[in-house]
Amino acid sequence: MVQYSSRLDASFAALSDATRRGVVEQLWRGDASISELADRFHMTLTGMKKHVGVLEQAGLVTTQKIGRVRTCRLGRRDLDEEAAWIDGRRRVWNERFDALESVVEALKRKETSDGRDNG
Amino acid sequence: MVQYSSRLDASFAALSDATRRGVVEQLWRGDASISELADRFHMTLTGMKKHVGVLEQAGLVTTQKIGRVRTCRLGRRDLDEEAAWIDGRRRVWNERFDALESVVEALKRKETSDGRDNG
Repeated sequence: MVQYSSRLDASFAALSDATRRGVVEQLWRGDASISELADRFHMTLTGMKKHVGVLEQAGLVTTQKIGRVRTCRLGRRDLDEEAAWIDGRRRVWNERFDALESVVEALKRKETSDGRDNG
Repeated sequence: MVQYSSRLDASFAALSDATRRGVVEQLWRGDASISELADRFHMTLTGMKKHVGVLEQAGLVTTQKIGRVRTCRLGRRDLDEEAAWIDGRRRVWNERFDALESVVEALKRKETSDGRDNG
């Protein structure tokens, strides 16, 4: 449970930055070196290394250094846990709205039948 | 686009903390005051106020002060954008794995037929 929780902490934190989400989207299209990513996002190498480090910690990206080039690719971790958490919350939201709607419908029906009884 | 992006920044950051996710889950079950939430999560009022502030900024929670009690409830914002972003990423992952599988299958078939041709 703690592991699950800290995985969610790390991945949601990693995704809370537009550049890091951009890096993930970029790596969908293919592997890229840190310097290619730095160029693409108009950042310094040091800045991009930090972002990639955060994504790597969260398991969303893996890197491999061959010679002087560090190549980044999408990590093995899918986002099933994050999707499940968010979908659970959306489901509850919808259920609450549906329940509210039923109550309103029941009240409407009651009002109509009361009106008929009294009319 | 910038608005969309900063909404994602704020909500993913809000969700990157286990206490804040716990508060959202708690509010699924019903509204609660800040002090009830502080008790429940064994925190100081000040600490809980900060967490609720982060959730409120992200639109995930709304609060209303009546008299001396500030009541928290689930915000109006659903998590559709976050779900869409994550689902998009998962779809790409699956597509890439499917593509990889097709290549492996094609190679296997080629190998078998080459073996047959040469055998």
